[in-house]
Amino acid sequence: MTNPNFVSWMTATQQQVEAALEATLPSSERTPQQLHDAMRYSTLQGGKRVRPLLAFAAGELVGATAANVGRIACAVEMIHAYSLVHDDMPCMDDDVLRRGKPTCHVAYDDATALLVGDALQTLAFELLSTPLEGIAAAQQLSMVRTLAIASGHAGMAGGQAIDLASVGHELDQTELEFMHCMKTGALIRAAVLLGAMCGQPLTAAETDSLDHFAKRIGLAFQVVDDVLDVEADTATLGKTAGKDEANAKPTYVSLMGLAQAKQFARDLYDDALAALTPFGDKAARLKQLADYIVARSF
Amino acid sequence: MTNPNFVSWMTATQQQVEAALEATLPSSERTPQQLHDAMRYSTLQGGKRVRPLLAFAAGELVGATAANVGRIACAVEMIHAYSLVHDDMPCMDDDVLRRGKPTCHVAYDDATALLVGDALQTLAFELLSTPLEGIAAAQQLSMVRTLAIASGHAGMAGGQAIDLASVGHELDQTELEFMHCMKTGALIRAAVLLGAMCGQPLTAAETDSLDHFAKRIGLAFQVVDDVLDVEADTATLGKTAGKDEANAKPTYVSLMGLAQAKQFARDLYDDALAALTPFGDKAARLKQLADYIVARSF
Repeated sequence: MTNPNFVSWMTATQQQVEAALEATLPSSERTPQQLHDAMRYSTLQGGKRVRPLLAFAAGELVGATAANVGRIACAVEMIHAYSLVHDDMPCMDDDVLRRGKPTCHVAYDDATALLVGDALQTLAFELLSTPLEGIAAAQQLSMVRTLAIASGHAGMAGGQAIDLASVGHELDQTELEFMHCMKTGALIRAAVLLGAMCGQPLTAAETDSLDHFAKRIGLAFQVVDDVLDVEADTATLGKTAGKDEANAKPTYVSLMGLAQAKQFARDLYDDALAALTPFGDKAARLKQLADYIVARSF
Repeated sequence: MTNPNFVSWMTATQQQVEAALEATLPSSERTPQQLHDAMRYSTLQGGKRVRPLLAFAAGELVGATAANVGRIACAVEMIHAYSLVHDDMPCMDDDVLRRGKPTCHVAYDDATALLVGDALQTLAFELLSTPLEGIAAAQQLSMVRTLAIASGHAGMAGGQAIDLASVGHELDQTELEFMHCMKTGALIRAAVLLGAMCGQPLTAAETDSLDHFAKRIGLAFQVVDDVLDVEADTATLGKTAGKDEANAKPTYVSLMGLAQAKQFARDLYDDALAALTPFGDKAARLKQLADYIVARSF
């Protein structure tokens, strides 16, 4: 059973993120209108907003303001949105459905989707480099760098490249984990760390604990995604189900079987939660969110 | 006649930029190897390095160190390289030749080209957010923001969107100028401004003058490009000549004719140079560079 207090926090936070994205994205009435319209279409489609939720929950560890976390949450979500737009393109996963609606290149065209992804990435860095109240410039510069490292060739984009290269190949668990740590884990980790960089500084030991939590929950999130790709139908998922198998993509389910993959998600969840012990009650939201993320597959 | 002292400065600066890019780009031996190899292929193809040269020349106005200007020059060049890789893709300009070699998606594949552009953009922001010696964090944050605004929906990417939307349409000179100010002008302007942000602060009036120079020279650069697309052959250009006319793209030549377009480039050049008057001898490199950029078409 999901905690009703958590559900209302989640709903309120999602609405706050939605409003912040809405206010930040360029108006469809400004030239170039189609680009701006497609940027909004690709970002304001709802979705669970897992990364922004993680940023807000991590912000609670350090007394961060909603305005500051809201900004970094938007930046992380724009990086995520850009990656979805590009990943869905015909030269990549060639998917036509995302969050229950036509993907950007289907609703618009390939050239627009390419530019939408490009411009969303840039906008994320613009947002994160606009001074945040009460945060030292050196700290903020470090936040920009954290997001860049998580998103680039040694993070999300690099993971996507490994994923592409691995289609039709056998990967062992170590290789699969390496790929997912980059492809989805790095940005999830960045969401947590950036949220925690918006307030009182953590000790080095606390940062390490939080980082361990973020890495485990990021991987759990991917394992759960693999499980859902097999178990859920397209309507529930809002994207084409069964794509992984159809594309001969290595997944945790193809590697270890469904039951084992579910158990692996649960183990990662336990490990993630253990890492939050030093934070006591301040980590309540992070724990509830970990529940929510992993419980999707139970 | 090009000044021999300028030629040796240009050659030395180009070599310095080449070495800095070489050292900064991820090694082809690191996983994901194909992505890294393609990032290097797309960035280390030589080219005139106009934006880095502008950054270095602007750095001379303010006593910037070569190490600092080198870093920002690499960041700007990576944004430029990413834009070329994406612009050449089949869904955009569909070009097979760039700097005399197969374009990235031809040498590799479309998915790799997509990721190369994505990862080069991110790497630019990673570079620019890594602390620069002797530059205050607040100033550097402002540099990140300057690059983001120049590259995104209100700059380079937005200009590309307008360019796409304008194929086959009549544009008047105002509309064409608006498009080019975004598509190529914004990043050229950013190169100049970022170079000048690497040293002693300029007065507001000096910044305005430099900005005027940058805008005029950026537009002149585009007009010259249009002229060369008509006048030069593919071998000289290192990219497919005559593409603009073949694609029914509006250009300064199609709008005003060849002779008038050349005169317009010269007028922009005169205006750009006049804006450098307040800087006296310190602007010698910027003047020589303006000569070099516009003289290509004489």
